[in-house]
Amino acid sequence: MEEKYMRRALELAKLGIGAVNPNPLVGAVIVKDGKIIGEGYHKAYGGSHAEVNAFNNAVENVRNAHMYVTLEPCSHYGKTPPCAKAIVEKGIKKVTISMMDPNPLVSGKGIEILKNNGIEVELGLLEEESRKLNEIFIKYITTKEPFCIMKTASTLDGKIATITGDSKWVTNEKSREYVHYIRHRLSAIMVGADTVIKDNPSLTTRLKDIKGRNPVRIITDSSARIPLDSKVFKEKGRTIIATTEKASKDKLNSIKELGGEIIITPLKEDRVDLNFLMKKLGEEKIDSVLLEGGGTLNYSALRAGIVDKVMTFIAPKIIGGALAKTSVAGEGIEFMKDAINLKDINITRFDDDILIEGYLE
Amino acid sequence: MEEKYMRRALELAKLGIGAVNPNPLVGAVIVKDGKIIGEGYHKAYGGSHAEVNAFNNAVENVRNAHMYVTLEPCSHYGKTPPCAKAIVEKGIKKVTISMMDPNPLVSGKGIEILKNNGIEVELGLLEEESRKLNEIFIKYITTKEPFCIMKTASTLDGKIATITGDSKWVTNEKSREYVHYIRHRLSAIMVGADTVIKDNPSLTTRLKDIKGRNPVRIITDSSARIPLDSKVFKEKGRTIIATTEKASKDKLNSIKELGGEIIITPLKEDRVDLNFLMKKLGEEKIDSVLLEGGGTLNYSALRAGIVDKVMTFIAPKIIGGALAKTSVAGEGIEFMKDAINLKDINITRFDDDILIEGYLE
Repeated sequence: MEEKYMRRALELAKLGIGAVNPNPLVGAVIVKDGKIIGEGYHKAYGGSHAEVNAFNNAVENVRNAHMYVTLEPCSHYGKTPPCAKAIVEKGIKKVTISMMDPNPLVSGKGIEILKNNGIEVELGLLEEESRKLNEIFIKYITTKEPFCIMKTASTLDGKIATITGDSKWVTNEKSREYVHYIRHRLSAIMVGADTVIKDNPSLTTRLKDIKGRNPVRIITDSSARIPLDSKVFKEKGRTIIATTEKASKDKLNSIKELGGEIIITPLKEDRVDLNFLMKKLGEEKIDSVLLEGGGTLNYSALRAGIVDKVMTFIAPKIIGGALAKTSVAGEGIEFMKDAINLKDINITRFDDDILIEGYLE
Repeated sequence: MEEKYMRRALELAKLGIGAVNPNPLVGAVIVKDGKIIGEGYHKAYGGSHAEVNAFNNAVENVRNAHMYVTLEPCSHYGKTPPCAKAIVEKGIKKVTISMMDPNPLVSGKGIEILKNNGIEVELGLLEEESRKLNEIFIKYITTKEPFCIMKTASTLDGKIATITGDSKWVTNEKSREYVHYIRHRLSAIMVGADTVIKDNPSLTTRLKDIKGRNPVRIITDSSARIPLDSKVFKEKGRTIIATTEKASKDKLNSIKELGGEIIITPLKEDRVDLNFLMKKLGEEKIDSVLLEGGGTLNYSALRAGIVDKVMTFIAPKIIGGALAKTSVAGEGIEFMKDAINLKDINITRFDDDILIEGYLE
């Protein structure tokens, strides 16, 4: 019985996707006499919290009601007053919380306020679902670095393009639409200079049914080789060039004049230092990065340990070619026993395409 | 109600897997007063047919009973007398048949005998399942060439081995066990000379729970390069070397002395002519071939059009390497629009490994 209210709260939380980063997705439901009398969710970064929205939307007096909320109510004055206090003031009798606040600075403090004021607190209902829903927030708030998803798309025989470099299209329309939804959900997208030079992509979010949010575009380009007339400088939204001392100052100035931002990282194996870059992006409040790199960048990212999750689309087609490129290249691992293993594997079908998702061990 | 009897007949048919090739898998159930009174299946090549076995196993008089059989009863004297006649003689009242005999020479004749003798005939119950179960037989009986399954196993990033050539193991134990089950089911296994030279495989069937049947080993080796001390010459069962005029007569004689058989094919693009080979294998009553080739042989097989089905295991691990090998190599297709598409995609999980199966369009 109770589970259905938490499921509803999780559904509500999802409505904030694409608008709350780097805040968590949160949903809240107020139940009285077996009836939902108020619902709310965190709608946008800086806006009021789910609990407050649920109070504001309540159609009955909430005194002695039972609140279901996906994340521990906050205890601190941030952009809004603490929700735990609001819950006390409204006379809520019992609060069921799916997961504790992962922020080590405040974790447990909201619950403490509730308990100290005689409110019954229940913790852990559908916790796994909540943790999955907020995997981005959990990584970001605990490490101050973005959650990074490496997305690849290949044929059944492992190729990302034909021997001539043709990659339009590996996957079907449904798969590509879903990738745009992921772009909408994540704060930033990252590709290498070669991708920009070769494909000149817009790196925007293009969705049919919802107004997509463009991610911040990040291009790793150690020598600042990308052309100044690249589409990434013409699209709305931020474009960050991650580069090194190898880049010419003139070129970097020209990029700045076009509105591009520059992050200079130390050299690491003659390339952009991805670990340094992730720290800088975290400081920029970028909580999540969708890595859509070529084989070289993907391999570097995996070796640097910045990848949290892998999303691999596989299209049921075969193109062959000993020289056709694959999704992860670079030097490569020497022995199968040292392979990078993924866990918590999930499979989704988009018609005949297959999406395999997993987390780095 | 009727469907459950045909499902049972299909289950019975499967018990013949690995023993009936190049005959079809057939199961039969006799029902009287809503009760199964007899069951049978085709147990082994040359042995009595499912219908006859069901009669022999019947625990009651079968007169006026209803028979469910997965394949049209035969009408001709082959290794056994025609089943259609036996059904008439036993006084069966009604026969439900899942699919007609795909053999164009006899298709429909068994049904004709039944109908001419006043037996009610119903056709097409669970036909799709029956056609799938006998996909090998259907291909073989209609074309006289073996049904060919290309089996590959790769990492999530499309590699079949690391940059150093290490391929032990890509997939997990459950996946590998299943491959041995497929080897048991199919009549032959085919690899290229390079696989034999590099890996020196036994190409046998190794199963835990059932006594596996070794497939006929076929090695494509245009110049007869494989060493005479290869394991394939030491294992039980037939080993066929498919070669060309490029091979030395001395080497071929040595292979024969070791018990190896030789098929000489014309040269096609300086290699073994796979289309010619398939015809020859069909003449040898080999109804099915499991292609476990390397990238070059796999690509040649696909281009020659001899592949009917693809089974690709994907292990959720990443090894990278621009120079690591993939499952289909060769020259490769130039444009994505010309890719070889698979249809009727089916996905099975073996713990975290994923098996993607599809048919050539």
